[in-house]
Amino acid sequence: MTDDRLARVTLSRIVEPGNWAVWTAVEQRGPVEVVRVLSAGGALPGVSRDLAAGAAARAEGYQPERDLATLDRAGGRLICPDDAEWPEHQLSWSLPDRRYAPPLALYVRGPRPLAPTVERSVAVVGARAATAYGVHVAGELGLGLADAGCAVVSGGAYGIDAAAHRGALLSDRAGTIAVLACGIDVAYPRGNDRLLDTIGRQGLIVSELPPGCSPTRIRFLVRNRIIAALTLGTVVVEAAIRSGSLSTAARARELDRWVMAVPGPVTSAMSAGAHAELRRPGTTCVTSAAEVLDTVGRMGDDAADPARAAPAPRDQLDETVRRVLDAVPVRAGAGEASIAKTAGVSALVVQQVLPPLLVAGLVERVDTGWRLTALGAGRPART
Amino acid sequence: MTDDRLARVTLSRIVEPGNWAVWTAVEQRGPVEVVRVLSAGGALPGVSRDLAAGAAARAEGYQPERDLATLDRAGGRLICPDDAEWPEHQLSWSLPDRRYAPPLALYVRGPRPLAPTVERSVAVVGARAATAYGVHVAGELGLGLADAGCAVVSGGAYGIDAAAHRGALLSDRAGTIAVLACGIDVAYPRGNDRLLDTIGRQGLIVSELPPGCSPTRIRFLVRNRIIAALTLGTVVVEAAIRSGSLSTAARARELDRWVMAVPGPVTSAMSAGAHAELRRPGTTCVTSAAEVLDTVGRMGDDAADPARAAPAPRDQLDETVRRVLDAVPVRAGAGEASIAKTAGVSALVVQQVLPPLLVAGLVERVDTGWRLTALGAGRPART
Repeated sequence: MTDDRLARVTLSRIVEPGNWAVWTAVEQRGPVEVVRVLSAGGALPGVSRDLAAGAAARAEGYQPERDLATLDRAGGRLICPDDAEWPEHQLSWSLPDRRYAPPLALYVRGPRPLAPTVERSVAVVGARAATAYGVHVAGELGLGLADAGCAVVSGGAYGIDAAAHRGALLSDRAGTIAVLACGIDVAYPRGNDRLLDTIGRQGLIVSELPPGCSPTRIRFLVRNRIIAALTLGTVVVEAAIRSGSLSTAARARELDRWVMAVPGPVTSAMSAGAHAELRRPGTTCVTSAAEVLDTVGRMGDDAADPARAAPAPRDQLDETVRRVLDAVPVRAGAGEASIAKTAGVSALVVQQVLPPLLVAGLVERVDTGWRLTALGAGRPART
Repeated sequence: MTDDRLARVTLSRIVEPGNWAVWTAVEQRGPVEVVRVLSAGGALPGVSRDLAAGAAARAEGYQPERDLATLDRAGGRLICPDDAEWPEHQLSWSLPDRRYAPPLALYVRGPRPLAPTVERSVAVVGARAATAYGVHVAGELGLGLADAGCAVVSGGAYGIDAAAHRGALLSDRAGTIAVLACGIDVAYPRGNDRLLDTIGRQGLIVSELPPGCSPTRIRFLVRNRIIAALTLGTVVVEAAIRSGSLSTAARARELDRWVMAVPGPVTSAMSAGAHAELRRPGTTCVTSAAEVLDTVGRMGDDAADPARAAPAPRDQLDETVRRVLDAVPVRAGAGEASIAKTAGVSALVVQQVLPPLLVAGLVERVDTGWRLTALGAGRPART
């Protein structure tokens, strides 16, 4: 076990997940140095005094090896950013408001490799207090998606989550992943212990919290970004207004994943949240696994090019902007005058259009001018 | 009774409604002349030989006064394009493919004046073989819309149509309008005779077919354009895939009215058509009368400016295009250089942007350059 990995285990124990400043410090200075600073009661840019003090207190006498031994006894494993199993595409994002960061490490239990499994996956989320209708639909979606080779990701909760997992377990093709807001060895909710056990033997249990951790309300909400990020899109099956599952849909929207909702009777309060989602621009109405698959892209056996499955940001641009974008070279940079000439628009238009494209991450500045990013070139985002 | 009106009655008897060539001939040469040509077995541009021959045969010995006497006995009245009751805004449209024309005249029965009543109206349509769920929702929508001062327009059929009419009749505020595919004196479907009678006494029965006409499949479909055109938007409550009511939604979409659909259980075949509509871009999911009203615009007591209720095409433009549009003057025309200066874009951009705006009917050429049309100025379309 490298010091780097042990440091990531330590950080997952002494700092609550999702903290942007801590994640940035780790990216810049490495996890070992961040653990050293925090353990010594030192300050990190953007990390509050309270958070640093709490981390220092928790770091005192902490031995990551003990958590790893517990993990091992539970049949789990640690996945870190440089591992082959780490879903790099899915867990690299950059949001303008830096509200939440990717995970520092993941604890995983189950026979499937994480990265290849989530490559074709959809989140199916919804109410704990689901109706028989919602449970039926979630189960059908889970089975239909898994049968089509699309892994079903959810939160392991009662109601819609459990129904989606159970549906997916009926197929042995694509598997199902429960992303928990507690340690992977914690059976929460207790009534789902056998279900979680089955998922741990046939699919995957995933958490960014070390073994033994209990769920809290904030951990559920922070966990939801992982469910959204790992998948091509999130389907809301049944959700009351202000349901927590809608936060998964919100994260999916922010992270440029597809947001889908299943309609239900307008007379059912349990569908009100799904209908509210459907009234938002960009949400797609889905009534079957086939429509979900149709929405997130072709995901059949021969989906050779995963880029086809991801939403293409350039398709959402207006014509003038797209013409400018099409005139920006892929490798060697070009000046604004040259881009204007190629695009057939004025240099003024190019000057107006490039800055927002820069912010959107579609173009970048190089010494010789402007060129496309991987995202702008239409290749899979964040390669 | 003027010759013009008698000629329109004659045309409604000898030619099936919605024919673009006949309507254009009437616009250009007047109804009296068109009746004269058709009665004499003459040809009209775009009118097929078969249609002309059929019209000539039906015109032989026809006396419009007799239809008007029948109309009078049924308590009905004739409304023609120059009448105050004629809903000019709603029934003037111009489609690029000229598939169907506005009506030549309307036969109406009921105490409400047509034009002011439809100014704030919404169509509620759906399956004849509706479920209890659909009937419940349509009734609630009908009542809620009428209570909010919004007339409810439908087709007088069994199922969703009848439920929407009945709901609206529970309120005496805005009334309900049944647009029939038969004469206004024909009780079709027979089981709705008492409902239609009530609508004729409290709301309005409308048809473009003269008294005594029977409905046919084609007449239902042609009638649907009137339901779509008269209203600010069409709500599909329950509809099977390929339901006729979806053609009303299609006409609403073509005529730039709002298209809305009510979700239902995905397990119900009777909601499959509504869900298919919801999967189309531009369709709004609605679950209550309040959401319908929110969609079509503010339609409260003080909705002084009906333009606010109509969809504003300029809201759908991209920023550069809108900036150019905002720089085009309302009355006196301006040259391209002047528009470019005002818009803060290059003359090239202006030259690229104006032609599509011209095609879209938002700007027009005048001697002095370019100016906004009424539509481009954001005033009600087709004033």
